[in-house]
Amino acid sequence: MPELRKDPVIGRWVIIAAERGDRPMDFIQQEQKTIQGLCPFCPGAEDKTLEPILVFPSTNGGWQNKQWLIRVVPNKYPALAPGKDPAPEEDGIYVRMNGTGAHEVVIESPEHDLSIADFDLPQVERIVHAYKERMAALRDDTRLHYILIFKNHGREAGASLNHPHSQIVGLPIVPKRLKEELAGAGAFFTKNSRCVFCEIIQQERKSGIRVIVENEDFIAIAPYASRAAYETWILPKQHQSHFETIEEHKIVSFASLLKDVLFRIKTHLNDPAYNFMLHTSPLRAPGDEFPYYHWRLEIAPKITKAAGFEWGTGFYINTMPPEKAAESLRKV
Amino acid sequence: MPELRKDPVIGRWVIIAAERGDRPMDFIQQEQKTIQGLCPFCPGAEDKTLEPILVFPSTNGGWQNKQWLIRVVPNKYPALAPGKDPAPEEDGIYVRMNGTGAHEVVIESPEHDLSIADFDLPQVERIVHAYKERMAALRDDTRLHYILIFKNHGREAGASLNHPHSQIVGLPIVPKRLKEELAGAGAFFTKNSRCVFCEIIQQERKSGIRVIVENEDFIAIAPYASRAAYETWILPKQHQSHFETIEEHKIVSFASLLKDVLFRIKTHLNDPAYNFMLHTSPLRAPGDEFPYYHWRLEIAPKITKAAGFEWGTGFYINTMPPEKAAESLRKV
Repeated sequence: MPELRKDPVIGRWVIIAAERGDRPMDFIQQEQKTIQGLCPFCPGAEDKTLEPILVFPSTNGGWQNKQWLIRVVPNKYPALAPGKDPAPEEDGIYVRMNGTGAHEVVIESPEHDLSIADFDLPQVERIVHAYKERMAALRDDTRLHYILIFKNHGREAGASLNHPHSQIVGLPIVPKRLKEELAGAGAFFTKNSRCVFCEIIQQERKSGIRVIVENEDFIAIAPYASRAAYETWILPKQHQSHFETIEEHKIVSFASLLKDVLFRIKTHLNDPAYNFMLHTSPLRAPGDEFPYYHWRLEIAPKITKAAGFEWGTGFYINTMPPEKAAESLRKV
Repeated sequence: MPELRKDPVIGRWVIIAAERGDRPMDFIQQEQKTIQGLCPFCPGAEDKTLEPILVFPSTNGGWQNKQWLIRVVPNKYPALAPGKDPAPEEDGIYVRMNGTGAHEVVIESPEHDLSIADFDLPQVERIVHAYKERMAALRDDTRLHYILIFKNHGREAGASLNHPHSQIVGLPIVPKRLKEELAGAGAFFTKNSRCVFCEIIQQERKSGIRVIVENEDFIAIAPYASRAAYETWILPKQHQSHFETIEEHKIVSFASLLKDVLFRIKTHLNDPAYNFMLHTSPLRAPGDEFPYYHWRLEIAPKITKAAGFEWGTGFYINTMPPEKAAESLRKV
């Protein structure tokens, strides 16, 4: 059973998940084990995954006669798993918790070699629908406080399998970075009666120098204090605190901008490894909008290595000014 | 000129250093350019570095007749550089600062292929002396608020050159992680009238399960909420807030434990890449001890890749329980 442990100095929670060490490809030194025909996420290998939680079936003759378009399955090597109550337990100055939660995999397509940059738009919409649907379902588990949606694309970004997939983790705590964002955005709101992210969008649209691309409902920017080369944020232009309340008609424009941005990154940087991560509001605010927090998707290409500096300090050196990154990506 | 930019939401500073992008080996895709004979840190190539700031000369016939044992030189591709006043400047909701500071390289030995795990003890002592001496000198620059000492060993840890070296960065701000540690340790002290790190040492010595090795003055532990497999902390057993006040006679015992721990890691994990990073108190507390903060060296082997999860959330999954890591390293 995985467990959560709290750092006694800064209060950061860490998952200690020994079982997850058994999964293939955890260690850098190992060779990539995925051989095309043996991929557990490919059509025909459905018995290699656990029973699916959600399936988008292929309509008649749909995707090259494959049986499904998207499958959401429980992670076979979960960082967190359903189980006992996550009640904190003390051991002297230390605090631990059962690793109760959810860990699901969104198999984004039957196609092994494509990625979001290549999919047709309806397929990207389906992925966004799957995220929304799973978040709505996981909200009902009152033990969970945050849903983390992220993607590791490519080995350098930590992906253990090539087949296009993303991950959904339901957490019994709110992660430290999110708490900081909520606190920072809350303080800004108290002072200025305005959402800091709305303010960022306004300032970026005015200057234009860090805007990569926008459509009616969403904007992609290279953030002012980018930590990594070509870091990109996609934000809804209209204030919205919870991703899962995204309106049906906006799913199309979000999917479209996501595909567009990932295509630009793929084209300009020669299909780099990248991570993306949804930053959204915690779950236990029943149905309300927060006026001060604004969801976004963060994309971080992995073209340089983070060094000791970053690891030890939360302090980053970025050799690519975001204005230059935005300019290159705009031109693609 | 590098610049510092502040994230408008969580207040994290990032260095934007475009010039540093020009250094060799910044991008993963490039092949390692260091060919033994052309290493700029090797004896005979002294003209390939900038004028040294500090040299420990070789005494007669010393290290295989080489002219020096340690050289400290300015980084040729600095993340921060001496310059104008780092006064903050506003641009709408954004804040930037000139990238004023110091960035130095400690060339730890004339030997290209060895590392701290292999050096004889007097050489490791010299390295620690060099750190102490440079910190004491950089303290005099009142524009600096924090001195970061760190090491990237191996390409996977972000090293751009093989030759054994570490880095010293003088910063005009206190990095976010350190601020959090100071705040967390301060809150613990207010509540318990006790240093949280002294408390950790006491609890770890009592249980023993996460102790790797100790000597008279220092202890090495696998921290309770380890973020990475085989993460190791070396702490002074007696309370001390500022690394640079380390007593002369304790330099030997610190060097000895550092060498011992790095030897265990090298042996057990087959010479992995690693980062180490000194966590110490900020500079502008003139000469005083803080009763609540306690310096330490953090060592993080890079045997797994951090994934999107970690990047986006400050939330880590570690597949190696620290008790198991400590047990393996104890046995070496």
